[in-house]
Amino acid sequence: MIESVLEFRVRYAETDQMGVVHHANYLIWCEMGRTDLLRRLGASYAELERQGVFLAVSAARLRLRRAARYDDLLRVRTLLRRLRSRSVTFSYVVEHTDGRGTLAEVETDLICLDSARSACKLPAALLETLRRARSAASLEGTIDAVPGLNTGVE
Amino acid sequence: MIESVLEFRVRYAETDQMGVVHHANYLIWCEMGRTDLLRRLGASYAELERQGVFLAVSAARLRLRRAARYDDLLRVRTLLRRLRSRSVTFSYVVEHTDGRGTLAEVETDLICLDSARSACKLPAALLETLRRARSAASLEGTIDAVPGLNTGVE
Amino acid sequence: MIESVLEFRVRYAETDQMGVVHHANYLIWCEMGRTDLLRRLGASYAELERQGVFLAVSAARLRLRRAARYDDLLRVRTLLRRLRSRSVTFSYVVEHTDGRGTLAEVETDLICLDSARSACKLPAALLETLRRARSAASLEGTIDAVPGLNTGVE
Amino acid sequence: MIESVLEFRVRYAETDQMGVVHHANYLIWCEMGRTDLLRRLGASYAELERQGVFLAVSAARLRLRRAARYDDLLRVRTLLRRLRSRSVTFSYVVEHTDGRGTLAEVETDLICLDSARSACKLPAALLETLRRARSAASLEGTIDAVPGLNTGVE
Repeated sequence: MIESVLEFRVRYAETDQMGVVHHANYLIWCEMGRTDLLRRLGASYAELERQGVFLAVSAARLRLRRAARYDDLLRVRTLLRRLRSRSVTFSYVVEHTDGRGTLAEVETDLICLDSARSACKLPAALLETLRRARSAASLEGTIDAVPGLNTGVE
Repeated sequence: MIESVLEFRVRYAETDQMGVVHHANYLIWCEMGRTDLLRRLGASYAELERQGVFLAVSAARLRLRRAARYDDLLRVRTLLRRLRSRSVTFSYVVEHTDGRGTLAEVETDLICLDSARSACKLPAALLETLRRARSAASLEGTIDAVPGLNTGVE
Repeated sequence: MIESVLEFRVRYAETDQMGVVHHANYLIWCEMGRTDLLRRLGASYAELERQGVFLAVSAARLRLRRAARYDDLLRVRTLLRRLRSRSVTFSYVVEHTDGRGTLAEVETDLICLDSARSACKLPAALLETLRRARSAASLEGTIDAVPGLNTGVE
Repeated sequence: MIESVLEFRVRYAETDQMGVVHHANYLIWCEMGRTDLLRRLGASYAELERQGVFLAVSAARLRLRRAARYDDLLRVRTLLRRLRSRSVTFSYVVEHTDGRGTLAEVETDLICLDSARSACKLPAALLETLRRARSAASLEGTIDAVPGLNTGVE
């Protein structure tokens, strides 16, 4: 299980006067997906922070294709995309639960910070956990490139 | 005057438990800059919406370089980057007002929607306003490519 | 079924630099509870708005007793507290799902607005739905006064 | 100078699909006013936290009278309302800068927490600063009761 699939319902407060979800909320939903993926991998992010390990977003790329609306039932699918010694990239797809097509594709790069908020290497245990996830993903072929996103900001 | 420079102070609610500003807020600050740039160009976005013209974010690319903190005095500089018949791209730099270096570089693509929220061409008047801004910018050389962002999602 | 019990997990973005949930989020969670209660009563709020009926918060009273933290599993319990021809009051309790005690007690007053956003009477059908809910509640004795909140702003 | 008057412009992201500002934002604006008032009193709240002193909202009472809209120019006026050894109450009025009447009246109670987040007495220096502000206020008669709010949650 190396893909997280997290369902949630759109909140009224997430809409704006255009009548649809404000785009900044997609980053928050992706963060929920990231938390859930780490939990599935056995690595509670809340616990990581208590141990002085922080993953901070250093870059994000969003492609918003269709609007989400209040009370819609959505899901965010989260995958580990790329793993390096000091950073990790996750990709996300936000979609309706009823298969009405993709709402958004997102990628976020995160760097590892220590308790002094200085950049550092991913702790060995976290790296190993993520590495296993990635291998499994490659074998299962579930990590596909998100068109138009994987050549983004480096 | 085709660059908007908007100052603001970081709100407590914009921080998260990492002790710095949550990354989703950069998109909101950029939106403030965009509103301000349009106002400087003589095109109130609030008025545009009342006339049935909507600019919806279709893509965003963020590069977060340094953390912003509660009560920091920041500014967002906003430029029109690219203009097409149906879309427009703005670029943004978020920085401390005291010149302590760049916090974030952002680009957002916006598409034009009509009152039925269908994609449409930018109204002629808006297109002309934006075109003049861009010409002025080119003459003044104030639009520089943001390194690492201008080859992003298309 | 006239009490809504809605479970949710605290999002990272909901925390602030104090290391706990920012207090403004309680109003958003209550809104989620309100949406859920209306759904259980058979009155979709999304559908009400499409029909030109709006319920706008005119007052809110919050008592925050204990802090919620990132990744906590919480629930909001929502009850219809008071029903008038032009307004309705809901009360809420936010608590941990594991029974570790109450985090917050909230009440919100909502007034009915028509499509021109003018105050109006609750539509007969909505009033009737809510009235039934309240009768059931009284019979079951599930609506207890929230100490310290029910003498608030009028 | 013991009243803070802070101007700001409504952000697009602060609206919801009702076409007006979502009510939770009033708490965030009040927080901005509170920060500003403390600064005018010579007590930076950011600095207080660095010294291990935290003021946490324990209760809030909001009366929302009129809706604020995107791009509106508003101000929040903040006053110290009540001072005790372990808590302090601020009151706020949110209004248009052009004198079109009050949008909202709010009160928040804050309790003092130490670095372990346990309730404690206000530090002597902070208490003294706030006490002077209150005396000045009483002399100047600028603290009037906000009708309908000052009998709220205790």
